[in-house]
Amino acid sequence: MNETLQTLQNHVSVRQYTDKKISEEVLQQILKAACCGSTMGNMQLFSIIVTEDEAMKRKMAPLHFNQPMATEAPLILTFCADFNRFNRFCEFRDAETEAYSNMQSYHWAVIDALIAAQNACVAAESLGLGFCWLGTITYNVDKFIEVLQLPKHVVPVACIPMGYPVEKPALTQKLPVEAMIHRETYHDYDQARIDALYAEKEHSDETAGILRENPDCENLAQVFTKHRYTKNDNEAFAKVLVETLKKQGFFADL
Amino acid sequence: MNETLQTLQNHVSVRQYTDKKISEEVLQQILKAACCGSTMGNMQLFSIIVTEDEAMKRKMAPLHFNQPMATEAPLILTFCADFNRFNRFCEFRDAETEAYSNMQSYHWAVIDALIAAQNACVAAESLGLGFCWLGTITYNVDKFIEVLQLPKHVVPVACIPMGYPVEKPALTQKLPVEAMIHRETYHDYDQARIDALYAEKEHSDETAGILRENPDCENLAQVFTKHRYTKNDNEAFAKVLVETLKKQGFFADL
Repeated sequence: MNETLQTLQNHVSVRQYTDKKISEEVLQQILKAACCGSTMGNMQLFSIIVTEDEAMKRKMAPLHFNQPMATEAPLILTFCADFNRFNRFCEFRDAETEAYSNMQSYHWAVIDALIAAQNACVAAESLGLGFCWLGTITYNVDKFIEVLQLPKHVVPVACIPMGYPVEKPALTQKLPVEAMIHRETYHDYDQARIDALYAEKEHSDETAGILRENPDCENLAQVFTKHRYTKNDNEAFAKVLVETLKKQGFFADL
Repeated sequence: MNETLQTLQNHVSVRQYTDKKISEEVLQQILKAACCGSTMGNMQLFSIIVTEDEAMKRKMAPLHFNQPMATEAPLILTFCADFNRFNRFCEFRDAETEAYSNMQSYHWAVIDALIAAQNACVAAESLGLGFCWLGTITYNVDKFIEVLQLPKHVVPVACIPMGYPVEKPALTQKLPVEAMIHRETYHDYDQARIDALYAEKEHSDETAGILRENPDCENLAQVFTKHRYTKNDNEAFAKVLVETLKKQGFFADL
């Protein structure tokens, strides 16, 4: 197995970082890797906000629900879907500037931003850094736009604190690979298949621990729907997201 | 520079493939890498449809506007945002099943699917394969859902033909890395900065060739807005995408 496959297979989220700073040289290698990925029509529809300043981290901390990763990491990279730069290019070249104010264009920019983000992650891990993705960036998308001063046609989609790991955690328990794979067409999951695919996870020590902490739940699925990601929360955050996409100019058609 | 950084920096889209088949062993290495990435709350909200069958490729070809990559590649991987598997898990465990029928949940699944897709791409390139992303998957998202038999809460977001390259093309000309980077807050682009960042690209032989083929355009920006990705096309495709997201159950709130 080559070094790259090893890096990919050994991925694990890291949530505790040492005090060691990330050098400008290492940062540049990560940013370069981020910018070398595929991109829609070579338009490069993304931007990366580099956060190293402690005051900025403190400003963002409550929006990340004060998760320690967001203040303790030496570096935070926020990847944005960005049609502003390309629209400016069009504006200054007497080309149509309202061609990309729609959901389809937003999708392209999201894809470009996430390709860049994952490339940055793979590069960082190959250099001995650790990181984790913060879902809070889409929950509080409107407030991050304010703090990061993002103009119209720019929306943050991934926020990734990075640093040198205090320790390398054990690999996360995942579903078997075949759970995600469908040959030629999609084959829906009946109860027997769900039981089989989730068996190892449901019977793990980790799950037993989670269920002890959530005595009102009979199983892991209920921990997710009753506590971790509830219908009410998700719908409230979804409302913010849709309103924000409209405000940022990506819903001319709605 | 380590091997992984070299793989990332040397990325180039490959559109012509030799007849050489991709072995099941290599395919499994790619799929395994795809499934080892970060994922929202460890929910693994994606599926991968593996297309090798010639009849399936022919069915999808017109939806990919008959681009040769879509029929000539030995392998096509379609990455889907998938909340169906997790919803089934909830359904069979007496947990709430309508918690994730909204735009926020769709976003999480898109992120998971694209992390998986980019991991697969990096793995493939490290193994000597070439690939390119097909934007057509989001244009004709409704029709791909039919052909691939995707149920509610599953939406394809990336489609990537892969094969052994006939030749390794030259690196694509991109904007300088600093074009995408913002320190601490976003710094908008004025005309002088756009001119500087796009100078090399606008004065390249490639752009000169494109302008000769498009005599009605004064510059590269106009080639994009008048011909490649026009307002009318984008808005028509956006309409299909929004309708499809509603139909697939991700817009309970709209």
